[in-house]
Amino acid sequence: MSKVPIVTLTTDFGIDDSYVGTMKGVILDIAPQARLVDVTHQIARQDVRQTAYVLYSAYRFFPRGAVHLVVVDPGVGSRRRPIAVQCPCGTFVGPDNGVFSYVMGEESVQEVIELADIRYRLPTVSRTFHGRDIFAPAAAHLAAGVPIESFGPPVKNPVSLPIPLLNVGSRTIRGEVLDSDHFGNVITSIGRLSWEGNELSLQPAFQLKGEEQARFPADELLITVGGMEIEGLLETYADVERGTLLALVGSSSHLEIAIREGNAAERLDVQAGDAVELSW
Amino acid sequence: MSKVPIVTLTTDFGIDDSYVGTMKGVILDIAPQARLVDVTHQIARQDVRQTAYVLYSAYRFFPRGAVHLVVVDPGVGSRRRPIAVQCPCGTFVGPDNGVFSYVMGEESVQEVIELADIRYRLPTVSRTFHGRDIFAPAAAHLAAGVPIESFGPPVKNPVSLPIPLLNVGSRTIRGEVLDSDHFGNVITSIGRLSWEGNELSLQPAFQLKGEEQARFPADELLITVGGMEIEGLLETYADVERGTLLALVGSSSHLEIAIREGNAAERLDVQAGDAVELSW
Amino acid sequence: MSKVPIVTLTTDFGIDDSYVGTMKGVILDIAPQARLVDVTHQIARQDVRQTAYVLYSAYRFFPRGAVHLVVVDPGVGSRRRPIAVQCPCGTFVGPDNGVFSYVMGEESVQEVIELADIRYRLPTVSRTFHGRDIFAPAAAHLAAGVPIESFGPPVKNPVSLPIPLLNVGSRTIRGEVLDSDHFGNVITSIGRLSWEGNELSLQPAFQLKGEEQARFPADELLITVGGMEIEGLLETYADVERGTLLALVGSSSHLEIAIREGNAAERLDVQAGDAVELSW
Repeated sequence: MSKVPIVTLTTDFGIDDSYVGTMKGVILDIAPQARLVDVTHQIARQDVRQTAYVLYSAYRFFPRGAVHLVVVDPGVGSRRRPIAVQCPCGTFVGPDNGVFSYVMGEESVQEVIELADIRYRLPTVSRTFHGRDIFAPAAAHLAAGVPIESFGPPVKNPVSLPIPLLNVGSRTIRGEVLDSDHFGNVITSIGRLSWEGNELSLQPAFQLKGEEQARFPADELLITVGGMEIEGLLETYADVERGTLLALVGSSSHLEIAIREGNAAERLDVQAGDAVELSW
Repeated sequence: MSKVPIVTLTTDFGIDDSYVGTMKGVILDIAPQARLVDVTHQIARQDVRQTAYVLYSAYRFFPRGAVHLVVVDPGVGSRRRPIAVQCPCGTFVGPDNGVFSYVMGEESVQEVIELADIRYRLPTVSRTFHGRDIFAPAAAHLAAGVPIESFGPPVKNPVSLPIPLLNVGSRTIRGEVLDSDHFGNVITSIGRLSWEGNELSLQPAFQLKGEEQARFPADELLITVGGMEIEGLLETYADVERGTLLALVGSSSHLEIAIREGNAAERLDVQAGDAVELSW
Repeated sequence: MSKVPIVTLTTDFGIDDSYVGTMKGVILDIAPQARLVDVTHQIARQDVRQTAYVLYSAYRFFPRGAVHLVVVDPGVGSRRRPIAVQCPCGTFVGPDNGVFSYVMGEESVQEVIELADIRYRLPTVSRTFHGRDIFAPAAAHLAAGVPIESFGPPVKNPVSLPIPLLNVGSRTIRGEVLDSDHFGNVITSIGRLSWEGNELSLQPAFQLKGEEQARFPADELLITVGGMEIEGLLETYADVERGTLLALVGSSSHLEIAIREGNAAERLDVQAGDAVELSW
């Protein structure tokens, strides 16, 4: 636990209503010292897969011991369990619907428990806003130092999303589109990549067992995505003219497709799940 | 006053400009320990009624002693008074135009004063941005512990909006649409509802004097809104198929109309003020 | 340095992705006590000029010693330098591309240094996200008290934008549109204005050397902008009917064109750089 307890928030609530503010009120009432940091509230409505990716891209940059509150919860009011997941990096709180899958692929999970103990909920629990009534109080109590075991029994088989495609062959890597960002950069499952001189080294993301590490030359690469081909992998946007499509290692160490000062997601017209191939 | 003073912010400023950030700078300059929490800055432009509802839905979840700063202020620069309202739950700061009406219907108001003392304003007060020059400094000084009496004289007759319609008959309750949210859920004035077994109990919201408490069976209800009829009141979204219109008790304990994984406000094409009827 | 170190954030990242949250995680990992305040993340994509204006309009309202982190960085990965600028009012951190120009015109700059020392960066620096890997860590270390000299060598000639037009004649002042806000108010370079009875006094903004102070009567003014003429300069929106175009002294003490409860930027169809003239 960091001395200044941090609670991050990731939801699909948008910012038009009072829902996010209300959750923050609940947290500060229980844990007045907690530091609240928004990851984003603009997850596409009820998109569990995008949530899993966004969390995966962000969590490693927060202090150890942070509590990550995630409320993207299409099954609110059904039998889906509210859970908390503890890793050395911090604790994750949210619905058991797969939102933590990609993080759990990366981290050594220490404990997964069900948020069952009503002492750590609001006195009245609505059927439609567990973010406020169950998840925010749990995150706050965790931030205030309540040990995870106090919240409820262990969960043996948390729900898991299919791990994104990442297939490493001898001269080909096949992956898929994960997401696109505000700038129109298209982020793929082909990662984690690092530069070693003029070569690239791939250490499979999501701890895909059985996938081998690969190593290949940047300038002989051919990237195929959305029916287009891109030759070579460059270091940064500034290596091309404005409006040019390029492939590069993005900020999360995954293969990204971008257009300098343009929108690659629109130009390529791709969506999460679409195929990406890299060959040499 | 909570030990960690909280200041919440509710405005129609949007998030594109530096206005909200500027108000926060002003607050932290006066009250460096204040914890700032955004309720929303996306109130429809100059919509006093929506502001009143959003505040009503959120304030009760913040710690006692919180200061709630509200700047939706079409009359800035006119003779409308800047005021502060003290309740046991906290203190409200903003223009005297009705934004606090619904909260004042719920709470036992202790004091309403005019923010007249220039010691608690910025040295130069613009004619167009009292949020920064009058309201933010007042909220900060209140958060820093200045007693409300120091700010100015009592206000006898603060501006009040009409209380939303809520008419309880022997087998019918008539109300109106209050707002719709990011998910397209339609929130009505029919509240506050609570489940008692298979029955619902209504304790009139906004402390509507003369309205009686009602009690009625959930499964025999007929809800009429936007020219459509909905039979029965369900517990949660998961009780119906995707795309189905349903009525339920929303997170603020008011009757809400929703579509599972869909947008009820668009389907019904209703606006604040439109009639809603519940009969049994 | 204020006792509670403040770090403000101004970017063009939008709020859909985890980029802003990630930067905040990096800052809090280095400076757990830092107070984070968003100025805006909605700067038009890669618009250095708009960034310079937004920062100019906001910085003076933050406590002395605040660290202002600015990431609008079309040249990321190129040779553009990462810099920090120290003034008595605080310290500014961001790319050397002109974003600090308007502030530097107003303030007495004490030091400009290049953020060269790798001890104050993340261990791995990507080629595409210096906001996270270079600027956020630098802002955090500055907030934590590391002296600016520690970060790198002095920068002699930081990049500067052209100062906005402000030409003061004997009976005419010529300026240009700087920006328009969420409400559609059009903000011009004609500032800083202050009322002195029924007259206005202009003290040239951006410390434009050689420009004289001017003084002129409010009610005899003619303002020309976007092909329209406005007679007289009023004190506030409430001085006209709804839907009426008016000129006034805006909240940043610059000449603004507004429509009461309407959108002047749309009606006038003007953009940054368009001519504005004031004569008497």
